[in-house]
Amino acid sequence: MDTQLTETDASQGLPSNWGRWGEDDERGTLNLITGEARTRGAAEARTGRTVSLALPIRPTPVISGPFAPSTQDASPVQQMMIYVGSPAPATADVMLVTNHHPRSTHLDALGHTVRDGRVYPGRPVDEAVTPAGARHGSTAAYAAGIATRGILLDLAADGPLPSGHAVTSRDLEAAEEHQGVRLESGDALVVRCGWPMTPIPGRPMPGMSLDAVRWMHRRGAALYAGDIGDAHPDLDPACPSPLHRVALPLMGLPLIDAAEVDDLAAVCAELGRYAFLLTVAPPRIHGLTGVPVNPLAIF
Amino acid sequence: MDTQLTETDASQGLPSNWGRWGEDDERGTLNLITGEARTRGAAEARTGRTVSLALPIRPTPVISGPFAPSTQDASPVQQMMIYVGSPAPATADVMLVTNHHPRSTHLDALGHTVRDGRVYPGRPVDEAVTPAGARHGSTAAYAAGIATRGILLDLAADGPLPSGHAVTSRDLEAAEEHQGVRLESGDALVVRCGWPMTPIPGRPMPGMSLDAVRWMHRRGAALYAGDIGDAHPDLDPACPSPLHRVALPLMGLPLIDAAEVDDLAAVCAELGRYAFLLTVAPPRIHGLTGVPVNPLAIF
Amino acid sequence: MDTQLTETDASQGLPSNWGRWGEDDERGTLNLITGEARTRGAAEARTGRTVSLALPIRPTPVISGPFAPSTQDASPVQQMMIYVGSPAPATADVMLVTNHHPRSTHLDALGHTVRDGRVYPGRPVDEAVTPAGARHGSTAAYAAGIATRGILLDLAADGPLPSGHAVTSRDLEAAEEHQGVRLESGDALVVRCGWPMTPIPGRPMPGMSLDAVRWMHRRGAALYAGDIGDAHPDLDPACPSPLHRVALPLMGLPLIDAAEVDDLAAVCAELGRYAFLLTVAPPRIHGLTGVPVNPLAIF
Amino acid sequence: MDTQLTETDASQGLPSNWGRWGEDDERGTLNLITGEARTRGAAEARTGRTVSLALPIRPTPVISGPFAPSTQDASPVQQMMIYVGSPAPATADVMLVTNHHPRSTHLDALGHTVRDGRVYPGRPVDEAVTPAGARHGSTAAYAAGIATRGILLDLAADGPLPSGHAVTSRDLEAAEEHQGVRLESGDALVVRCGWPMTPIPGRPMPGMSLDAVRWMHRRGAALYAGDIGDAHPDLDPACPSPLHRVALPLMGLPLIDAAEVDDLAAVCAELGRYAFLLTVAPPRIHGLTGVPVNPLAIF
Repeated sequence: MDTQLTETDASQGLPSNWGRWGEDDERGTLNLITGEARTRGAAEARTGRTVSLALPIRPTPVISGPFAPSTQDASPVQQMMIYVGSPAPATADVMLVTNHHPRSTHLDALGHTVRDGRVYPGRPVDEAVTPAGARHGSTAAYAAGIATRGILLDLAADGPLPSGHAVTSRDLEAAEEHQGVRLESGDALVVRCGWPMTPIPGRPMPGMSLDAVRWMHRRGAALYAGDIGDAHPDLDPACPSPLHRVALPLMGLPLIDAAEVDDLAAVCAELGRYAFLLTVAPPRIHGLTGVPVNPLAIF
Repeated sequence: MDTQLTETDASQGLPSNWGRWGEDDERGTLNLITGEARTRGAAEARTGRTVSLALPIRPTPVISGPFAPSTQDASPVQQMMIYVGSPAPATADVMLVTNHHPRSTHLDALGHTVRDGRVYPGRPVDEAVTPAGARHGSTAAYAAGIATRGILLDLAADGPLPSGHAVTSRDLEAAEEHQGVRLESGDALVVRCGWPMTPIPGRPMPGMSLDAVRWMHRRGAALYAGDIGDAHPDLDPACPSPLHRVALPLMGLPLIDAAEVDDLAAVCAELGRYAFLLTVAPPRIHGLTGVPVNPLAIF
Repeated sequence: MDTQLTETDASQGLPSNWGRWGEDDERGTLNLITGEARTRGAAEARTGRTVSLALPIRPTPVISGPFAPSTQDASPVQQMMIYVGSPAPATADVMLVTNHHPRSTHLDALGHTVRDGRVYPGRPVDEAVTPAGARHGSTAAYAAGIATRGILLDLAADGPLPSGHAVTSRDLEAAEEHQGVRLESGDALVVRCGWPMTPIPGRPMPGMSLDAVRWMHRRGAALYAGDIGDAHPDLDPACPSPLHRVALPLMGLPLIDAAEVDDLAAVCAELGRYAFLLTVAPPRIHGLTGVPVNPLAIF
Repeated sequence: MDTQLTETDASQGLPSNWGRWGEDDERGTLNLITGEARTRGAAEARTGRTVSLALPIRPTPVISGPFAPSTQDASPVQQMMIYVGSPAPATADVMLVTNHHPRSTHLDALGHTVRDGRVYPGRPVDEAVTPAGARHGSTAAYAAGIATRGILLDLAADGPLPSGHAVTSRDLEAAEEHQGVRLESGDALVVRCGWPMTPIPGRPMPGMSLDAVRWMHRRGAALYAGDIGDAHPDLDPACPSPLHRVALPLMGLPLIDAAEVDDLAAVCAELGRYAFLLTVAPPRIHGLTGVPVNPLAIF
């Protein structure tokens, strides 16, 4: 770990967990999910009703011939239907997945963003990430899956957040108070802003502020999932993309980008409860910088 | 639905759910997961301890240059590390996934196998599955995730099953009795045989028999997951691959191929309980014939 | 070889080379390129001026992040820029190629189309082509490259052919006469119709008729390249796609789909000569059913 | 163009063409192929006999199921056979190509290697090459194909070069003299060392020295093709990889890596002539950093 760097960050007062769980740590704030936190999560699973927090993905087919469409939406997944025999005894396919696609609900690995040439918790990027894949801070940390209590803070209960709004700790605490819930250490934070992940020309997104990220640090959020998170364009040029450039690389806070939280908000409102068991279990693939995931809220 | 075909199958006495939930059904035996079954599953989640049922996958890198290795294991996933900028502000990747790879824990869609030119529940394959993807019986049925009670029947508690052993209903019921558990309608059946999915030359695998599949039908299994399932080579030439050629296409029973159940068996033995909440939430990708998944057993 | 099938085709009077060069033949009409034909071709190379007969392909990038475009043209090639190091000592990439894409100039292998369950010269398709690639009638036949005399017949010298026009032997011979050139056995035939390969809704393409294909057979064309070839929709329901369903599988005539011949026509008109040395040298990849190629006309 | 950088290189005495054909040049030494050079090449095509300079590539199949092989050679190309219908009316495939694979005969684009953060002829790499592909110095420069006179210098006529031998201008001129041929400005240089491209553990490769590269510069070689070129490990730590780090980025000399020249050497010896028409026509794909190619020597 580069002490000097940490001191620099510390002198800037940025929240950081570099060194907190050792120099080899790959789990970051998942370390906050103690036995007690897990039990708190399990206690929320009562009826077994589940809600998916993933956007549906419709693959782009990779096909041939004069009937291939000339334009198409770019999907996070491209699908190739495979020849198995003629006539076909089975159907099979191969898919090409863009792991960090903005219309794919995906879980970032801790090594996804680089700060001053380093990834969490201070490893030089060219040591941690190679042309042959990530050796440190990869999706291997998520191999066993994640289960903890999830808390939805619905900032868009009365309509989408205003364009360009910087979400602060005050907004998050107001939602807690209004919903009658409190994020405890080891809980997963799920945020709804009422906006799509894809930038809309001429309408600056809202997004999390550095103040909101500091609040997550103080409270001990284990995971962040939101319909949006960092705003594009940046809300604060002095601290652009606080989730991806502070929370992920310095705090080691895993991020779920492009979560689908409308269904979840509807169920929470219907049931009058904003806590649930959250499971996050992406395919058990090591060495990636990110991976598509279908998080489940279980009530 | 082709009535005549169904009658043919019926006359052969094969277990079938064609027509049971309508001609447009895409969920098959997941229909058995009623509110009661879900609640039964949720009741098993107590401490929040989780176990993954997925094999770890180490991707094959797609790399260039004189230092590329000359031979390598074929992995279900091939990874390409992507150029984001120089120096790199972030790391990113793309992966190519072989959805039905034998060393990948994956969930088969109901349209994966074809019986007499048709897929569950009787749709002609060329109508259900096109070069542009599966329109019927695809992974779209798993979009919202699956959560129900899981039951492990550990047939290998005293060592791997004998080579070439055909598992029968008697074996499954003996395990139930020994473990003090009973598979109810809507439960997910998890089976451990103590064998790897990859065939071993000269040592015929054990596997499920048609009798075992009939038992799953009678009992109302909602899902099958096993370290192995169908044997290669076939145990019964008169009914080869009863899971993939009877249970999947006729009963509509989703199959999880190549599950990793050793860790699960160890935890079950440690806790002395063989029931748990099972979550199965593959990436929410529509139109596939199969998809990698990381099932979680939650205790 | 299935004699009965051949007789069936013969009884229909379709031109066929099944058996002409043996049952194991994989070269088809390339067998017509004798030493004499090659020398005739070489004699056309005088100044070394070259013209490409390939459409330019601009790959679709596979990229991530909030700035990824939301829609894009589907390209025959998708490109992934690869991470080599940070900072980058070199740049590298991987590409995904749709071999039979209609906007890619590509060379069909003889096993590409299936006639009555067989590929040239009578092999059952499931013996010739496997899930692991083509074993017979693949691009392996083009490994050493092709060089012979090429003859452009410009049917669109006075403007694009009329919509829905079925090109006959009379059209081809009229062009020969007008241009003062004659296609000899072993020559490559290059045809310009003045139409793009992609179908235009409401404007039926022109295309080759069975009569034109018979003429190619009589004359001994070794290869066909055209801006278009078979019309979509079909011109003659009794004999749809005569190039892909008769010439390729029965005559063993290699086809270059989607050739770019406008530049060639301009140079031929400028020089007042319609014969040239044609080289066709796709990447030396075995086992494919088709492959992108950049044919060169050398004057 | 960064004048200072050029001066630095000049002060080191490295051969460079930065600025020689303008700051926007993308053709490098292909500019040396004048009309006179082309005609000299065409004059070598007499009988039309052709020899391929490409290694055969056998793709790795991307397949599924219990019968998929557990290990396999890594190929430059991976092939997916595509489902077209059932029964199959045609066969089709998609391929994934590793453009700079060491067992693929490929043509490097001028932007492939970076020198002091810049690519030929002095463009900053992050301006020339983006995550969406190469904008400057890409394979677009080869769109129209290359045809010129090729000269084989067979350094291995009496057996493979000694391990670790650094080829000098003296070696190249000795071969010229022995073979009775002379490389003129605009000719393509083809070199045979008698070694495979893949490094052999414990046996250092021979390779080109900086002196040999200087000779190519003086003589006006338009293109380099060799069975090998740069040695791995490096022969001269003070100037590692002179072809890829000097000739390509500074001189703008296109390189064909991993050419197959044994067949060519045999034909040259048989005919007693070492000059031929060389055509180099990779698929016409823009924006790549390298591309597989099947160069043809035509006699």
